[in-house]
Amino acid sequence: MGCCEDQASAVSKVFLAAELRGLPSHGMIRIKDYFQLWEAGRINTSPDIKISYKTSSTAVVDGDRAIGMVAATRSMEAAIKMAKNAGTGWVSTRNSNHFGIAGYYAMMALDYDMIGITMTNANPLVAPTFSVSRLLGTNPLAVAIPAKNQPPFVADFSTTPIARGKLAVAEKKGEKTLHGYVQNINGNPSDDPSILKRGGSMLTLGGDYEHGSHKGYCMSAVVDIFSAVLSNANFGPFVPPSVAYLPVLDQKVGEGTGHFFGAMRIDAFQEADDFKAKMDLWIETFRNAKSAPGKPKVMIPGDPERKNEERIRREGINVLPAIVQDLKEIAGKLGVEFEVR
Amino acid sequence: MGCCEDQASAVSKVFLAAELRGLPSHGMIRIKDYFQLWEAGRINTSPDIKISYKTSSTAVVDGDRAIGMVAATRSMEAAIKMAKNAGTGWVSTRNSNHFGIAGYYAMMALDYDMIGITMTNANPLVAPTFSVSRLLGTNPLAVAIPAKNQPPFVADFSTTPIARGKLAVAEKKGEKTLHGYVQNINGNPSDDPSILKRGGSMLTLGGDYEHGSHKGYCMSAVVDIFSAVLSNANFGPFVPPSVAYLPVLDQKVGEGTGHFFGAMRIDAFQEADDFKAKMDLWIETFRNAKSAPGKPKVMIPGDPERKNEERIRREGINVLPAIVQDLKEIAGKLGVEFEVR
Repeated sequence: MGCCEDQASAVSKVFLAAELRGLPSHGMIRIKDYFQLWEAGRINTSPDIKISYKTSSTAVVDGDRAIGMVAATRSMEAAIKMAKNAGTGWVSTRNSNHFGIAGYYAMMALDYDMIGITMTNANPLVAPTFSVSRLLGTNPLAVAIPAKNQPPFVADFSTTPIARGKLAVAEKKGEKTLHGYVQNINGNPSDDPSILKRGGSMLTLGGDYEHGSHKGYCMSAVVDIFSAVLSNANFGPFVPPSVAYLPVLDQKVGEGTGHFFGAMRIDAFQEADDFKAKMDLWIETFRNAKSAPGKPKVMIPGDPERKNEERIRREGINVLPAIVQDLKEIAGKLGVEFEVR
Repeated sequence: MGCCEDQASAVSKVFLAAELRGLPSHGMIRIKDYFQLWEAGRINTSPDIKISYKTSSTAVVDGDRAIGMVAATRSMEAAIKMAKNAGTGWVSTRNSNHFGIAGYYAMMALDYDMIGITMTNANPLVAPTFSVSRLLGTNPLAVAIPAKNQPPFVADFSTTPIARGKLAVAEKKGEKTLHGYVQNINGNPSDDPSILKRGGSMLTLGGDYEHGSHKGYCMSAVVDIFSAVLSNANFGPFVPPSVAYLPVLDQKVGEGTGHFFGAMRIDAFQEADDFKAKMDLWIETFRNAKSAPGKPKVMIPGDPERKNEERIRREGINVLPAIVQDLKEIAGKLGVEFEVR
């Protein structure tokens, strides 16, 4: 598609991480979407990414319509670079696109004994509390924190009860979902996973007001503002679709999709070794919690994905035939050799 | 109680803000708790608060067992001071106590055209997903963001479906609660607001695993780690009780209660005026969302508390007779004149 080797490598690393961590909804299934966005001229594979350092701990990045992974990797590198000198680094990025799994960028900080933070806004599908208007995306937040002998703490979660991919899976299987994920066009409870196609919307974490959906709305709003208002990207309902079959909106309030990145050096607060030993104690304390009868053991954020990765590295990545077919077609169009081993 | 005037003023400002914003559960009702903690020697009213600046954007504060408001105000001032030079400032605070409403400190940043962030850990009453062990507090998070003509965005929320105070209110009224707030000692659903007294626990935002309680657990865990592991305070189940009638734990893993504070200068990312005008647009977009039939208008984080404040400034603060009696007794013990007008 015209990416230089560095950028192609950045993109494939994030796709690979999604597959290995057991999040195929953010893996190779998206290559077709990205290809179609490129065909439609909505992705720039030769971007001139501009990093504007504003203070010793802050920068704004203009992604020049890059593939999200390219803009995001550069942005997180800038945050880490600033943290080396100023203790912390904070980057708000505009004019980007879908960037895959948020946790990947947060985890980049771990190699430097830093805490990594990533946020992004996303296609508007989620209604704030009391509303039927789709004003927010599933707006994920990731935080990666290093430990010593324990594996790192890696939280990576959308600010909705479930990720959108789970609705698509239920729809394909012809199943209903639980209540509490979506509502219909009038704001009534729904268990129909295809309701988004008929004006329905996803709910924020908490589900309804009585159960704290306004707190999920607050979190999602903070992700949106840090990602898009600080960077001058499109916010809320103006975020451009990450698939080519949905049109670009007429109204823009900024440029492209927005992300936010943070890096905090551990030793900008405590001796890194002491902190990491204390994180081991934190993790062991939570891992040894008493489970309710019949329930699984308490997990530490990052455990499920790490277990997936151990299994998938052993068993290999299972690529669905439909994805193989997509990749073959794309390879054909691009005149690239394609081989399935 | 021996506070100098500055510190007494810091404490009363936060109590007053809680009362005015319609959050009396964090207002004058707590004075008795603080007094009893002081009587028990667990609060130091002549603290030597130590601010250790570690890098241009980070500091760790030792609150020397100060009243939470005193340590928190000093900590947030340090974050703001660093942000003036480095663009952002981040402070993790140990050896503190209950600090009232998190939003107060986040809002301190607004006067400087900064975004303010506050977190604190709290008494362990909340079980992580799948568990019956009380390992987390209601661990609130507050984010204040300035706007131009619109009032500021002020999110201030616990990482549980409801604040603990609502359970106490239901209990006093002899009412059941909705399901989804608490579980009994075996992890079964409960609608009994007094269940915490019999080994029950509060649930994290999301309620159950199927509805994303692991995301509420992630948020609460991040608040705990930023507040306590970064500062070397007590984390998770080791956070000391904020009332004197509960004993201090034998096992300590750090000093006192922990908080975390952040300040980000708006113009460390964008021209402050452009940003604030864009925030007005964000707020107007969300305020104009379509409500579901029969539901209230969509609110912006901070709207409910601001409406409370308008009303309460007009009508006056309603002090319950039981609180007047408490204050009178305390005044008697301290030999302070007490007058109710």
